[in-house]
Amino acid sequence: MNKPRPLVFELLATDRHSAARRARLLTPHGAVELPAFMPVGTQATVKGLTPEVLENCGTQMLLANTYHLMLRPGADLIAELGGLHRFMGWPRAILTDSGGFQVYSLASRVEVTEQHVRFQSHIDGARVDLSPERCIELQEQLGSDVAMVLDDVVGLPAEAKRVEQACRRTVRWAERSLAAHRRLDQALFAIVQGGLDMRLRLWCAEQLAAMPFDGFALGGLSVGEPPEQMYQVVRQTCPVLPADRPRYLMGVGRPQDILEAVAAGVDMFDCVLPTRNGRNALAFTDSGPIRIRNACYRNDPRPLDPDTPSLASRFSRAYLRHLFLAGEMLGPILLSAHNVAYYQRLMAEVRAAIENGSFDEYRHQKLAGWGTQPEEVESVE
Amino acid sequence: MNKPRPLVFELLATDRHSAARRARLLTPHGAVELPAFMPVGTQATVKGLTPEVLENCGTQMLLANTYHLMLRPGADLIAELGGLHRFMGWPRAILTDSGGFQVYSLASRVEVTEQHVRFQSHIDGARVDLSPERCIELQEQLGSDVAMVLDDVVGLPAEAKRVEQACRRTVRWAERSLAAHRRLDQALFAIVQGGLDMRLRLWCAEQLAAMPFDGFALGGLSVGEPPEQMYQVVRQTCPVLPADRPRYLMGVGRPQDILEAVAAGVDMFDCVLPTRNGRNALAFTDSGPIRIRNACYRNDPRPLDPDTPSLASRFSRAYLRHLFLAGEMLGPILLSAHNVAYYQRLMAEVRAAIENGSFDEYRHQKLAGWGTQPEEVESVE
Repeated sequence: MNKPRPLVFELLATDRHSAARRARLLTPHGAVELPAFMPVGTQATVKGLTPEVLENCGTQMLLANTYHLMLRPGADLIAELGGLHRFMGWPRAILTDSGGFQVYSLASRVEVTEQHVRFQSHIDGARVDLSPERCIELQEQLGSDVAMVLDDVVGLPAEAKRVEQACRRTVRWAERSLAAHRRLDQALFAIVQGGLDMRLRLWCAEQLAAMPFDGFALGGLSVGEPPEQMYQVVRQTCPVLPADRPRYLMGVGRPQDILEAVAAGVDMFDCVLPTRNGRNALAFTDSGPIRIRNACYRNDPRPLDPDTPSLASRFSRAYLRHLFLAGEMLGPILLSAHNVAYYQRLMAEVRAAIENGSFDEYRHQKLAGWGTQPEEVESVE
Repeated sequence: MNKPRPLVFELLATDRHSAARRARLLTPHGAVELPAFMPVGTQATVKGLTPEVLENCGTQMLLANTYHLMLRPGADLIAELGGLHRFMGWPRAILTDSGGFQVYSLASRVEVTEQHVRFQSHIDGARVDLSPERCIELQEQLGSDVAMVLDDVVGLPAEAKRVEQACRRTVRWAERSLAAHRRLDQALFAIVQGGLDMRLRLWCAEQLAAMPFDGFALGGLSVGEPPEQMYQVVRQTCPVLPADRPRYLMGVGRPQDILEAVAAGVDMFDCVLPTRNGRNALAFTDSGPIRIRNACYRNDPRPLDPDTPSLASRFSRAYLRHLFLAGEMLGPILLSAHNVAYYQRLMAEVRAAIENGSFDEYRHQKLAGWGTQPEEVESVE
């Protein structure tokens, strides 16, 4: 690959006690301080939040979904309107997911062949063929800063044979994606698959690491397996990925999952939890989640979380509870804004802790504060 | 009434060609420039908008509903939490409607007696008795800047006998409300009833004008009658109301209704149209309404309305249409914000036009730009 790199990855500091690293990604739409959390803007909007609110809480990069946008309003329409940044009024960096995961989780009548994945749209039942090349073309139309290769995603648990087949196909599709990719101002990340089979994971990571991708993602995780198994895969896979390029753990996760994965050397995350849980009246705090509908907040005059400045800060817990009980839109808006602010504050603290050598201490302190968090890791919005 | 006036009404200018007036209301929570439009915050929130967004588009006073708040979360709870301003994080003026209109429009099994109105809550079917005295007590607990007397509201068309009965009862209830009212930092407005019967309207206005209310409202309008009939009632009733106190036309209305009523001498308005229409994908502009779901906006790169700066300004019509078609919350949020900004810009222009003697010209110019606006006047949220 002779094209100039559209991304610059600067390694700024590494942790003494873990594989955690503090880095910076320079994209065509500004710098992204790593480790970073990307809120999920599935349909070219992070549900209920304006770009201004997202920026104000420290967001530097968003995720949007090729699968959703190709179906509605169409990547060609977004291109005609000047690309995704302009379309959604977001001036900073955007990563687009390839759609592999959404085809697996949302579409029906899915048929995977060597050439492409064929499926029925979840919106209108239309038959769609998505090949690795078409997926690149769509993302070039969207104009994201980082495009993802199309991968063959398998739910867990699955038959060993199917996992291996998907893993090998993902590698072949990654090669085709690289060959198809043209935009010089867009980076391309590969996705490591292989389920929970470490032999396959390592083989896949090695194959992809030998290709000139701008970054590497771990996919096919947080799809139902116990967190500890996911951590094991992450810990063992990261060392095989090039140290001079970013590592991205897709669809993860809960705050504790993020800390574990940062310790394993992951730089980037995305997850719907802050916004989905916000819409469902759950707020993240350093003392664990607050379920704001609970009767104990009926007359609670305290702010939701004095440690996290956000759009929700000026309101009492009693008021926020009232908004949810009354079915008022402002409830989901304020809790979504709070949770994104909470995640961005967490990432800023993580970065500072790695810089000043206190990440190990910080991580244990946070985990103790949270206690056990029962909510599941969920990957799609 | 020997108590000091909680409101100061300053008359600043009057129009040469109409009864329009430019005034200022000094409330315990700041000045309100008149003529003013109050967005409707039924359940202690203007649907989808934060206090910051409301302030940024020039809102100085909101309306909230005693009926809704007494049922949920309860006026006593709001009092315990420091009153309605603090509860909803709104530092400026608030007017609370008495609930007379909501009992008529939302409750079931309504029985009106001389003592009180008895009804079933629309939320849980609970039986509630609301007397003029209880209504004052509730609004004193809420701590609004302006409280409204409980009125006996009749839908139109109605039997002449029932209209007269309701009108006479409203006057007796107004006297009881005055006698019950205690808070020195809260104003109390009377409500003129009488349907479309000008004899009754004028009798009611005269009776109420003789009592020491801080302001006077016209109620029982925009309940199904043709706009021209409403204008007639407003034009004939305003001159009977004291010139040194504010006049408030309840539940009105469309932009053209507001201009007609300002010309008749009305100072204050509230209506759910900007927010309800915003949620339903209709945006107000100087060239008439835009229905943003229409296919003609599919690839329209233009901003919604370049003349009205608002939260929606940075987005194209194509993007706003996409948000509505995709069922995304941000669509209703942005169009509600736009419409409130549009109404507040309209009121600011009205005030400037009265000041500089060009209101008549301004009114005709606006009406010509809007053309015929078919949407109905709706009074409740």
